[in-house]
Amino acid sequence: MALRTDNLKNGYKIIQDNNAFCFGIDAILLADFASIKNGQYVYDFGCGNGIIPLLLNGKINRYLSDSSRNNCTFTGLELQKQAAEMAVDSVKLNNLEEKIKIINGDIKKVKELFKSQCADVVVSNPPYMTVEQSHKNSTDEKTIARHEVYCNLEDLISAASYVLKSNGAFYMIHRPYRLQEIFSVLTKYRLTPRRIQLVYPKINQKPEMVLIEARPNYKPDTQFMAPLIMYDENNEYTDSIREILERI
Amino acid sequence: MALRTDNLKNGYKIIQDNNAFCFGIDAILLADFASIKNGQYVYDFGCGNGIIPLLLNGKINRYLSDSSRNNCTFTGLELQKQAAEMAVDSVKLNNLEEKIKIINGDIKKVKELFKSQCADVVVSNPPYMTVEQSHKNSTDEKTIARHEVYCNLEDLISAASYVLKSNGAFYMIHRPYRLQEIFSVLTKYRLTPRRIQLVYPKINQKPEMVLIEARPNYKPDTQFMAPLIMYDENNEYTDSIREILERI
Repeated sequence: MALRTDNLKNGYKIIQDNNAFCFGIDAILLADFASIKNGQYVYDFGCGNGIIPLLLNGKINRYLSDSSRNNCTFTGLELQKQAAEMAVDSVKLNNLEEKIKIINGDIKKVKELFKSQCADVVVSNPPYMTVEQSHKNSTDEKTIARHEVYCNLEDLISAASYVLKSNGAFYMIHRPYRLQEIFSVLTKYRLTPRRIQLVYPKINQKPEMVLIEARPNYKPDTQFMAPLIMYDENNEYTDSIREILERI
Repeated sequence: MALRTDNLKNGYKIIQDNNAFCFGIDAILLADFASIKNGQYVYDFGCGNGIIPLLLNGKINRYLSDSSRNNCTFTGLELQKQAAEMAVDSVKLNNLEEKIKIINGDIKKVKELFKSQCADVVVSNPPYMTVEQSHKNSTDEKTIARHEVYCNLEDLISAASYVLKSNGAFYMIHRPYRLQEIFSVLTKYRLTPRRIQLVYPKINQKPEMVLIEARPNYKPDTQFMAPLIMYDENNEYTDSIREILERI
């Protein structure tokens, strides 16, 4: 363990472990992409060190311009004990125990952990790669965070489908090369992809991430959004990315 | 009928009817996106006035820099009698009867028309809209070209799957909002989306077209390409589009 405490732009602090998986731009893009309304029950499946609940709670505070009016409830579920403990410590550090609950548990036991239709929103920044894509047969923390060692796409989407209310929304960031499979599994669990945004490193490069909003039982009608382009020709963040970093 | 003859950049002439469906940028983008090798059997399902076979034949001639070496064979299938007749006339006008065959027939009767696994490549610029999206209950030529009155996505993809050789390729241009359904139907007919390119009108706008390459029986691995952006901030074609118009 090599713990450090970082300051987030929204004023919160987060505990991270240099030797484990620290949050990246993916978490920021997902927190920005997800629409949260006041009073909602929001779940983060595979919450890691709790970055997304911290960002979303800050986002709703900023939107309300009065944190005392914020009556959202966030629940982060994380399988890895050490990451879950860091998340709990970060929540305490920010005095957010009333708003953010962290559970160290397995998404595959979602029916034992949660009631069905308890969630307005589910967000997830899951492992992107399949186990077959893992070169090392490892179960270290970074491998578990990046590869589907303990939780695959279907485990995640079936769990999201179970907890989501009928008018709920599921937000995920993933890799574009898995989009066919993502659409197929979403459809299997009666979630309709509604809003898709591809994230391109540069205007002349292939997209490396995709933001997905899916909703229960909508008829097929997938809106692809304007491209989100990370860097300009000088390798500086584009205005779109700067605006996201500014507002999240 | 209000026939006119237009000159294509590749030297061919094409007969079009101002009152029916004239080819647009879609056909050009699809012809550029499709990979054709010399000697291949290429089918265009729903070929309209024959624009895509004319563009593809010109493309292979240019690639070989000697049209006498071109031994591709193109077959255009078109349901609408008048469009098929224009295509036949255009083929004659360019003395391409040996290379391009036009059939006035129904894609739903593909098994009566063609042998299975006769095609190296199938291209299609099909009707984009479902019948439900047709406001008028019309069967005029433009409506048939734009709406799935006589041929829906599954008719097309099942026909493509039937004629394609096991190492063949299917190229289609369509609307992004139908991509989930496209992926689902492709998968049903054991075609794997391999290469996807979204076409955005401008860098800050939603994509309006999507180019799709699918191949039989590949394992899922969909590569999204760099974005294709049509217009710059001055409403001029971008360099990418200029290059396509130059080379096709």
